[in-house]
Amino acid sequence: MNILSEKIAVLGAGSWGTVLANLLTDNGHDVTVWAYLDKDAHELNDQHTNEHYLPGFKLNERLKATSNLKDATDGANLILFVVPTNVVRGVAEQLLPLLKESGNKPVLVSAAKGLEVGTYDRISEILASVIPAENHSGIVVISGPSHAEDTSTKDITTLTAASTNLEAAQYVQKVFMNSYFRLYTNQDVVGVEMGAALKNVIAIGAGALHGLGYGDNTKAALITRGLAEITRLGVTMGADPLTFSGLSGVGDLIVTATSVHSRNWRCGNALGHGEALQDILDNMGQVVEGVSTAKVAHELAQKKGVEMPITDAIYGVLYENKPIRETIVSLMERDSKPEFDY
Amino acid sequence: MNILSEKIAVLGAGSWGTVLANLLTDNGHDVTVWAYLDKDAHELNDQHTNEHYLPGFKLNERLKATSNLKDATDGANLILFVVPTNVVRGVAEQLLPLLKESGNKPVLVSAAKGLEVGTYDRISEILASVIPAENHSGIVVISGPSHAEDTSTKDITTLTAASTNLEAAQYVQKVFMNSYFRLYTNQDVVGVEMGAALKNVIAIGAGALHGLGYGDNTKAALITRGLAEITRLGVTMGADPLTFSGLSGVGDLIVTATSVHSRNWRCGNALGHGEALQDILDNMGQVVEGVSTAKVAHELAQKKGVEMPITDAIYGVLYENKPIRETIVSLMERDSKPEFDY
Repeated sequence: MNILSEKIAVLGAGSWGTVLANLLTDNGHDVTVWAYLDKDAHELNDQHTNEHYLPGFKLNERLKATSNLKDATDGANLILFVVPTNVVRGVAEQLLPLLKESGNKPVLVSAAKGLEVGTYDRISEILASVIPAENHSGIVVISGPSHAEDTSTKDITTLTAASTNLEAAQYVQKVFMNSYFRLYTNQDVVGVEMGAALKNVIAIGAGALHGLGYGDNTKAALITRGLAEITRLGVTMGADPLTFSGLSGVGDLIVTATSVHSRNWRCGNALGHGEALQDILDNMGQVVEGVSTAKVAHELAQKKGVEMPITDAIYGVLYENKPIRETIVSLMERDSKPEFDY
Repeated sequence: MNILSEKIAVLGAGSWGTVLANLLTDNGHDVTVWAYLDKDAHELNDQHTNEHYLPGFKLNERLKATSNLKDATDGANLILFVVPTNVVRGVAEQLLPLLKESGNKPVLVSAAKGLEVGTYDRISEILASVIPAENHSGIVVISGPSHAEDTSTKDITTLTAASTNLEAAQYVQKVFMNSYFRLYTNQDVVGVEMGAALKNVIAIGAGALHGLGYGDNTKAALITRGLAEITRLGVTMGADPLTFSGLSGVGDLIVTATSVHSRNWRCGNALGHGEALQDILDNMGQVVEGVSTAKVAHELAQKKGVEMPITDAIYGVLYENKPIRETIVSLMERDSKPEFDY
């Protein structure tokens, strides 16, 4: 039993939301998952399972679920967003009147990874733009190398808890921390969120190389150069370059770009095998964040004048029907030059 | 056919030496491999194979081999060292009188990765300390994510060619470059060699976690923190931190610490399964550079006052009989704190 017992709402019943909600329940907190669909809430409550996202995984029986946002968030000290990027704004807009009505000021935590199409906003920016400071007690981002499947089996998992509000970050650290889940505070929210979002695009590229039959040497080269280009864009947006060498940067990039657990990697792999994007997304049954992030990153890089050849190549394959082999492989066959000019 | 046709000696008939010699022959150069054993030279010459290191791989029939160092190096424009770290000095000492006698001044290239026990010297430092500047035309280090097995199947492979002598680095770039083998010049020799050597120690750690049953989250955390500590030691020795974000740093680390092709990873994996170090090394039949590098790095870190918890843990397991599970896992379970203080 944890020294704290907080009331927590977890918004989103995907694999990561469910694993985090279960972990928080194991930590001794009073946790309610908000599921979009009634039937998912019923499954969590009655069967203590989430078969679609976590087949075979048995949840803590104290974990509750509801499809009613008010019931989920009422009196919560901490509200965790683990919904797809494209619905974060809508959910926050539904939450705001509830917070205003109750006068409750929870800490808002994001475990989502993406950039919003159209606005180019990071998740914490979406939350801050919808929910005024007077209605919350800080916004914290958690990110790092963390496949839900691995955390569900208590694989030691390390994350960054990033916030400009150190007190809120330390609170989140205390709430989540246990023997296999370790959080480290960081104040560079921009760097953490940019790394988290952009690495999914590089993972699509690594998966594509695998699908095209390339080996570890080629994939490592792409990941290395991918890290350089996402760092470039991040720094332009105000991030500390050091953050990209940390858990939410290279750590998350490694886990996402070298593992079949990653949906983004699997999407790239299927593209490399010649499957059509729409078929891949239909078959996946889960959101592949890197697909929309590729569009945002491509546009943002153009706007800011940042060179992102890998992201541009992935964008071309996803949105402009460019042939995948020629597009991806041509990246790797550029002229000889000094290493840090590429 | 390459525009250049150079006379090249490749010292060392292991997997990487053989693949590089074959690639250089394919590029149109006149290449002789120096093998330590007569029988290996005969196999290369007569069967055009190297079954022990590259089972099933057919070599270019123009590639020659000899166990006579003078015959191998006579008149060579470029001499490539691909021998284990612990014999580099001895081979260089045998080479010196031959160079003095012939007046030949080849470019010396190192593709070996390690630090010398006792002296803490990098490979290029060993070469420079044995062979005076008047007897060579520059010392160049090539390093990057490059499993020999992948390069042998023409997987696109990218490396750094590092030298304080840019002209020599550009020459090496031209000699090796082809459609699937890409070199980028870099003048930070210290950073390239330190990354190349030290990453093998981290790979032993990642393999050990795998052998102990840990998953991708835990391994990515160790690799991320490993990158931080090898960068710390490298910078103390005069390296540019940026180099550790490049091909010879994070690129090589990823390929070595996530792939079963890596001997260092396999050694760690076997340790994690409870096998004894001596049995592992006996069964490997090939040098595991990370084992001696762990000793050098541990001593060097102590001498320089640099914190290297992962390297120290691996050292403890390899040289002080420390229990592997407790030693490695305790690394991952430290107190909560800010990310970049660990």
